[in-house]
Amino acid sequence: MDLGENSYDIVIERGALHRIGELFDLNRKVMVITDDGVPEEYADTVADMAAESTVFTVPQGEGSKDLGWFRAILTKMLALDFSRRDCVVAVGGGVVGDLAGFVAASYMRGIDFYNIPTTVLSQVDSSIGGKTGVNLNGIKNIVGAFHQPKKVVIDLDLLKSLTSRQVSNGLAESVKVGLTSDSELFGLFEKGNAYENIDEIVLRSLMVKKNVVEQDEKEQGLRRILNFGHTIGHGIESFERLNGLYHGECVALGMIPMVSDALRPRLIRVLESLNLQTAIELDVNEVLDAMMHDKKGVGNTVTITTVDEPGHFEMKTVAFSELAPLIEIVGK
Amino acid sequence: MDLGENSYDIVIERGALHRIGELFDLNRKVMVITDDGVPEEYADTVADMAAESTVFTVPQGEGSKDLGWFRAILTKMLALDFSRRDCVVAVGGGVVGDLAGFVAASYMRGIDFYNIPTTVLSQVDSSIGGKTGVNLNGIKNIVGAFHQPKKVVIDLDLLKSLTSRQVSNGLAESVKVGLTSDSELFGLFEKGNAYENIDEIVLRSLMVKKNVVEQDEKEQGLRRILNFGHTIGHGIESFERLNGLYHGECVALGMIPMVSDALRPRLIRVLESLNLQTAIELDVNEVLDAMMHDKKGVGNTVTITTVDEPGHFEMKTVAFSELAPLIEIVGK
Repeated sequence: MDLGENSYDIVIERGALHRIGELFDLNRKVMVITDDGVPEEYADTVADMAAESTVFTVPQGEGSKDLGWFRAILTKMLALDFSRRDCVVAVGGGVVGDLAGFVAASYMRGIDFYNIPTTVLSQVDSSIGGKTGVNLNGIKNIVGAFHQPKKVVIDLDLLKSLTSRQVSNGLAESVKVGLTSDSELFGLFEKGNAYENIDEIVLRSLMVKKNVVEQDEKEQGLRRILNFGHTIGHGIESFERLNGLYHGECVALGMIPMVSDALRPRLIRVLESLNLQTAIELDVNEVLDAMMHDKKGVGNTVTITTVDEPGHFEMKTVAFSELAPLIEIVGK
Repeated sequence: MDLGENSYDIVIERGALHRIGELFDLNRKVMVITDDGVPEEYADTVADMAAESTVFTVPQGEGSKDLGWFRAILTKMLALDFSRRDCVVAVGGGVVGDLAGFVAASYMRGIDFYNIPTTVLSQVDSSIGGKTGVNLNGIKNIVGAFHQPKKVVIDLDLLKSLTSRQVSNGLAESVKVGLTSDSELFGLFEKGNAYENIDEIVLRSLMVKKNVVEQDEKEQGLRRILNFGHTIGHGIESFERLNGLYHGECVALGMIPMVSDALRPRLIRVLESLNLQTAIELDVNEVLDAMMHDKKGVGNTVTITTVDEPGHFEMKTVAFSELAPLIEIVGK
């Protein structure tokens, strides 16, 4: 990842977890942050290779991305006398990475951060790009920092512990990337057998994200294409939290209204092949309310990305009220 | 302040508060953060010139620099639908500036921040340089971010509401700057009448700080000279909090052991002319314990700055235990 003085390596290698001591500088105090849905041996493997390590395990799920856990981890690091030269390692999915990244960004105004994403979603998307943060009062990522990792290790062997639902959840973000920026990637999904082509899918998705982030580290413009499907998706996610939809599942739903009428049936076929829902029961006004709190909004308008054919996107700013008929497209 | 894309203007002008609408872009939502020790009309003057403003007042004192107030202000901004394009204005001393700056750094991963420091301490030191943060479990500035302001306004007319003790508290930081980096500034203090020369003192102090920050924005090296007097000073501050010593008063004490034997009597005369204490009752071990938690420490060592004559400093890394005899110098 080429970002001037914030540049770093992304290592993509099956089995890399077992030589993490060579890849990261662990010859110092290391706070390993994970969640109780990640196999314990992943975090333990990292901890065992560190000079002085502590594993901090939060409960699995979006609820752990909050200021309470942020404070708890910082307090632990303070009690352990972590200095500016020590580091944080995230071992988990997007929740763990975002929380651990914000901890690393804030402790003494920023210490080294390494990320070992263990889900498809975090491997193809959230682990690179430097966005960190926690939720506040149910609004996603409202408190955080841009803090680039020192290194990211993508070890596809770690995915073997995932359920097929978790894999599909992550692949939704790859479909997103294919739609906005890589028609060949979208073509891979249309050919079917996405689970078998996962190495190629992860690699292609990462390359697109890397290129976008390199051009727009702080999300001033282009990087917004990564939010394709997220405007309505986040709205559904906030509204549907109690029904237990995953992030990628919400993004899948959020993309459907944002593609052209011609492309929509092709997208729906791809999502169905991944066992992703393409319609849900929802209340349009409640989804709209949740979206208006979403951080991509500026006043009463929001910039949305639409795709007419794979690899071609457009951005436009619309009033929130114009989104109501779009949300209805995925309503049952 | 020349920091590449993070550059900003520092406006030094008596009466500038009354044309703040021209100096800042207040044509948006504005969160004005102040404390109950600052004259209300200062924050109200800013709020009155903004398109849509809210004044958030925290209690005066170091206790307000904590994650509880951080969360409370972010929650308020969220409730008011603050977007990425809105801004935060600090109107107060260092506590307000550090807290408000961290809020601005973190809300949606960073929004615009303006600072109007109202104390000598914040005008000559903390308002410029981009350090923001809050305390955790009694340890100063352990959680925070580097987030440069968009603009800083130094209005010396605002100092008229300060007590002479508050003025002296701030001047201690100017004495520090004179000692490490500007022998003419130290000479001004030796001539006496510091209160009458405050315009020149503030300006010279600011220029030194500006030059140091420009050379070392993220405190990798040179910027550490700004911590001169702070190693022992912070230790005393943590230990003495209950006795009510101000930050600058602790820094004054912290500088005394760090100058050469030849310079020490001259420094003590200057501090006495400002009615600053030059010795206190303390427990060396408790001060040492507090220091070892201080964030400038790396493991069991700490980098200290010493001054042999005004304008000439040296840095060296020593074991904490070596500081005990130095602390005793200011013990009664």
